[in-house]
Amino acid sequence: MTPLALTMGEPAGIGFEIAGAAWSTLREGTTPFFLIGDISGIRGVPVEEITAPEQAAAAFAEALPILHRPLPTQVTPGHPSQAHAPAIIASIEEAVMLAKAGRAGAVVTNPIQKASLYAAGFRHPGHTEFLGEIAGTGVPAVMMLASPMLRVVPITVHEPLAQAIARLTPELIITHARIAHAALIRDFGIARPRLAIAGLNPHAGEAGTLGREEIDIVAPAVAALRAEGIDARGPMPPDTMFTAKARPGYDAAICLYHDQALIPIKALDMDGGVNVTLGLSIVRTSPDHGTALDIAGTGRADASSLIAAIRLAAEIAQRRNA
Amino acid sequence: MTPLALTMGEPAGIGFEIAGAAWSTLREGTTPFFLIGDISGIRGVPVEEITAPEQAAAAFAEALPILHRPLPTQVTPGHPSQAHAPAIIASIEEAVMLAKAGRAGAVVTNPIQKASLYAAGFRHPGHTEFLGEIAGTGVPAVMMLASPMLRVVPITVHEPLAQAIARLTPELIITHARIAHAALIRDFGIARPRLAIAGLNPHAGEAGTLGREEIDIVAPAVAALRAEGIDARGPMPPDTMFTAKARPGYDAAICLYHDQALIPIKALDMDGGVNVTLGLSIVRTSPDHGTALDIAGTGRADASSLIAAIRLAAEIAQRRNA
Repeated sequence: MTPLALTMGEPAGIGFEIAGAAWSTLREGTTPFFLIGDISGIRGVPVEEITAPEQAAAAFAEALPILHRPLPTQVTPGHPSQAHAPAIIASIEEAVMLAKAGRAGAVVTNPIQKASLYAAGFRHPGHTEFLGEIAGTGVPAVMMLASPMLRVVPITVHEPLAQAIARLTPELIITHARIAHAALIRDFGIARPRLAIAGLNPHAGEAGTLGREEIDIVAPAVAALRAEGIDARGPMPPDTMFTAKARPGYDAAICLYHDQALIPIKALDMDGGVNVTLGLSIVRTSPDHGTALDIAGTGRADASSLIAAIRLAAEIAQRRNA
Repeated sequence: MTPLALTMGEPAGIGFEIAGAAWSTLREGTTPFFLIGDISGIRGVPVEEITAPEQAAAAFAEALPILHRPLPTQVTPGHPSQAHAPAIIASIEEAVMLAKAGRAGAVVTNPIQKASLYAAGFRHPGHTEFLGEIAGTGVPAVMMLASPMLRVVPITVHEPLAQAIARLTPELIITHARIAHAALIRDFGIARPRLAIAGLNPHAGEAGTLGREEIDIVAPAVAALRAEGIDARGPMPPDTMFTAKARPGYDAAICLYHDQALIPIKALDMDGGVNVTLGLSIVRTSPDHGTALDIAGTGRADASSLIAAIRLAAEIAQRRNA
């Protein structure tokens, strides 16, 4: 199949280590991938420099294929350098370009350190928003975190919690729920997706006594979604919707703020969670963790989430091409 | 040992069923308990009417001891009656009175349906606040949810989320952390408790770019707690502080709002969680669920959380008396 493109991410983080570990685990599988980054960053596993994605499949069983994009200065694990920012951004842009051209089946991104990129002129709160700009489809780029136990879609992400609450509207819920619904059908193969729409307040507001957002914002959104044939339920009490008994009742939870989505999935499954960006023209996944600068270079990094991200990207890419 | 008092809770809920099931499980144990409620509510397990708590220990191995407090009208499972409200409230008051007098080792409360009690003049957002009034010690009554995997202490509880955020102060965090710290020593036998203080915003505000509450409110509280010798850490990023890797690093998480505390503990352990009220003159625990009116009377209720609540109450009572 068409190989997947893996970006370099922050070279001072754990990206190179987990890329090598992921290759070791996945080398006998059916989905080749290649790294876009500096070939000298990979230690401990064989590498093969390629000059085009089409060479990746043949190389993959014996070495991690690399589209070599050299960094201008040496990497010190744990200490990001602003000199690397242009190459980090270019790695993402090239992966997206290859995916758009059909030369990469999907883009899997290694974690970036936003603070280091801001100084180089990066103006996005994160990967998701950047990808929305360079691979958008006219709808918002929507973050889903997916694990075998739970899928969550936060409708507000990187902003102060008080501001996220003030910004909630039925339209925001409806837009994200529609995108999630379409992706569950197209990318996850779920014929009739069931969406659980979270409430905002304790006990989903207890009929208005603990807050009105459920009545004024969430319930109208649920009604509108149901009117267009989407199986949406809610507003659900946030504290009980993620229990082991409740989770099998829906295919994705639409969450109103960052931590309402990320607390439960990370508590349940820190290593297996995958970040999937919905609403793009390409397939994009990433591990559900950061650059882990504190352990970079120590060999202690856990590649589980990157491996899960590569596997899920391959599944989605295959489903889209089927 | 001194028997524990179990309140009736909402008789139309699952309280009677789980009380009987808990007795079946715990009858051979070392901690007798007795129910304060209508004896006709218990089906399927032997009961023995007692007239004083001191009779409970002798009866316990053969039957669930009951201080019979008759209800004025029949109970219909799933359908609370306002006629029962005075008896429900009286059951709590009597349990507290017995505990204060040393005739009950602890109070374990069955879930109540607040809406049914409000009509009868109950003026508290919940059990915790009511108990703070009738068994307070001059400090706030503080809710802790405890399971073998995690202990959490929400510092704001039953109020709209936006209001809870607006009401945050360093003092609120400090007061709750002190009470939790004292309880971890006295009631949980932890010599030097480690407290993880949560941030409010995504990624704990990312140095102020995603919100200022961490800088203005949480960090000063952490510094003040450390200055008085309490091992407090934070502000912790809310989404990563509840992972399997992070949880062993602290003895309790001090959380800034209801769902920040309740989402992770219920996602991890719906049935094993116990609600403990800290800061009272008596020991009080309760199961970490509601009245479950939808399954009352069907025999499907799960007594795990009540059993865990009784066991934890017994442990705390023994530790206090040791």
